[in-house]
Amino acid sequence: MRAVSIKNGKGPVDALYIDDSVSEPELKNGEVLIRVKAFALNRMDLMQREGKYPVPAGTSSILGVDYSGTVLKIPPGTKTPLQEGDDVFGLVKGGAYAELLAAPVETIFLKPKELSHEVAASIPEVWFTATQVLLEVGEFKNGESLLFHAGASAVGIAAIQLAQLHNAKYVFATVGSDSKKEAVKKLQLKNSPTKIIPINYNSEEFVDVIKENSPEGVDVIIDPVGGIYFTRNVSILKLDGRDVVMGSMTDTNVKFDLLAVMLKRLQIKGTTLRSRPLAYQGKIADIVKAEILPKIVSGDLLHPIEKVFKLEEIVEAHKLMESNKTTGKIVVTIP
Amino acid sequence: MRAVSIKNGKGPVDALYIDDSVSEPELKNGEVLIRVKAFALNRMDLMQREGKYPVPAGTSSILGVDYSGTVLKIPPGTKTPLQEGDDVFGLVKGGAYAELLAAPVETIFLKPKELSHEVAASIPEVWFTATQVLLEVGEFKNGESLLFHAGASAVGIAAIQLAQLHNAKYVFATVGSDSKKEAVKKLQLKNSPTKIIPINYNSEEFVDVIKENSPEGVDVIIDPVGGIYFTRNVSILKLDGRDVVMGSMTDTNVKFDLLAVMLKRLQIKGTTLRSRPLAYQGKIADIVKAEILPKIVSGDLLHPIEKVFKLEEIVEAHKLMESNKTTGKIVVTIP
Repeated sequence: MRAVSIKNGKGPVDALYIDDSVSEPELKNGEVLIRVKAFALNRMDLMQREGKYPVPAGTSSILGVDYSGTVLKIPPGTKTPLQEGDDVFGLVKGGAYAELLAAPVETIFLKPKELSHEVAASIPEVWFTATQVLLEVGEFKNGESLLFHAGASAVGIAAIQLAQLHNAKYVFATVGSDSKKEAVKKLQLKNSPTKIIPINYNSEEFVDVIKENSPEGVDVIIDPVGGIYFTRNVSILKLDGRDVVMGSMTDTNVKFDLLAVMLKRLQIKGTTLRSRPLAYQGKIADIVKAEILPKIVSGDLLHPIEKVFKLEEIVEAHKLMESNKTTGKIVVTIP
Repeated sequence: MRAVSIKNGKGPVDALYIDDSVSEPELKNGEVLIRVKAFALNRMDLMQREGKYPVPAGTSSILGVDYSGTVLKIPPGTKTPLQEGDDVFGLVKGGAYAELLAAPVETIFLKPKELSHEVAASIPEVWFTATQVLLEVGEFKNGESLLFHAGASAVGIAAIQLAQLHNAKYVFATVGSDSKKEAVKKLQLKNSPTKIIPINYNSEEFVDVIKENSPEGVDVIIDPVGGIYFTRNVSILKLDGRDVVMGSMTDTNVKFDLLAVMLKRLQIKGTTLRSRPLAYQGKIADIVKAEILPKIVSGDLLHPIEKVFKLEEIVEAHKLMESNKTTGKIVVTIP
């Protein structure tokens, strides 16, 4: 089958190529075979391509964690209401940059006919991650306040909306430009009581902006950036506040004051989604199915697509993501 | 009434004195009046005496959080099965170093007749704290492994036994002497599958001892010491491990690697019991009542008393605690 491979196993963007001679995936127990029609890019794909992302044990070495396509084969005895021929989308631990994919039934969704394969493929990783970091790890509760770093990222866009579904009081979001501030403001949901306050980190100090608007601080911080923000994050958390570390794009050696962590009863929680057991991912899938998917279909939740590429343009697709200039999802189709 | 006061509000041990002219406490809603027969000392009393412990808002400025005594007065309308004259013991947010005490009904226990007031008074803070840090904050589960720093402390003695009730695989405990190692080994419960491994921090490196016995590390670390251990704690935690910061007796400015916290999905959780809402403390009380108290009465759980003083000897009692040489509880009686 055709799949995206990496010359010498890892390397820069130009190491990516279309490989015609990749073996078809073998189905493990509980997996079905998918003919992939579209897959989405995620930031960790860049890290994995460069050999900097520790792929969970037993995972395909092929890039890609979310896909949309058609069910080709369901082994006898597999527990699933799916049928061969169904249009589906979902999340896998790896292998989505390929024509054929082994996908676990726990994290497969029937594709609503209102959604194209391009849109469907770009939903799982973003919304699973937002759900995981905000609701599961962050334990965000109705009426609490949120700070999301990198608020104009795809996960930021999802989490800012999700926090509104849970009646956030304030959502603060750091972004890198005034145009991204405007984009974040547009995430205000109809009839939501939430006050969304974007912060341009190039011209404003987030601690000051938060103290001015919400002197008591915030309950939950979700941070895909890491090092540079950590000490300030701890300083701005309320009693019982939670700092969720979901990425570390900057220096990862950080300092903090243990006494403040104790007296404010803070929680610092590191997380990754991809390494989680399937049962955990299945629980997240249930939340996404019930709470989120219907609202994406109805248009009540915004889920922007930045650009769609063809498989042959995979290098251009990775280059666009590396540019750090996009806000919507980058998708690749396999006709 | 008589109570222990502090000359000039805070100071060294000699600032403590018996004050004959302290006003009787006023009962707030949900509180009953107790005639205190005994109270126990806790390490935070020393910090509070020195003005270094932030007492929760609305709390009595009198020292002391656990007591045993007799119910003197229950205001009409108070929801409690207790009756005036009952012998009781329990936890308060402050005020126990006094003849009369206002105590909330949520955290009062009927005193089993098998327990003296001296023993009963010394139970709540220790066992509430052990329950809180191990089960609630630490989320310790059957079959997991624990590292407890300061394992020969009163809370350590309680937590090491509690972990065995939850079928701990390994319990590692740092202590300051070989005689304390022996004391910790004696905490092995009958028929417990747990392997208890005390570590003398003056002659052994805890990271090495743990790696040798349990190469994968530990699931939960409970640390009343803080700064000096923090980086090593993070290094020895398993995937999904939890580091519970319940004290900081050393330098509190610590460094750590955010990337390790993310990839191992670690949780660093600060906590104090005294600042918690009454509903939370009531929940802990229910666990102590059901799981622990019957086993202290039956002698299946060890709860050592170091020494009992009279009220007039309060200075000597504090001096003994300051010596850092005790393992059992220090109790003061008010005849």
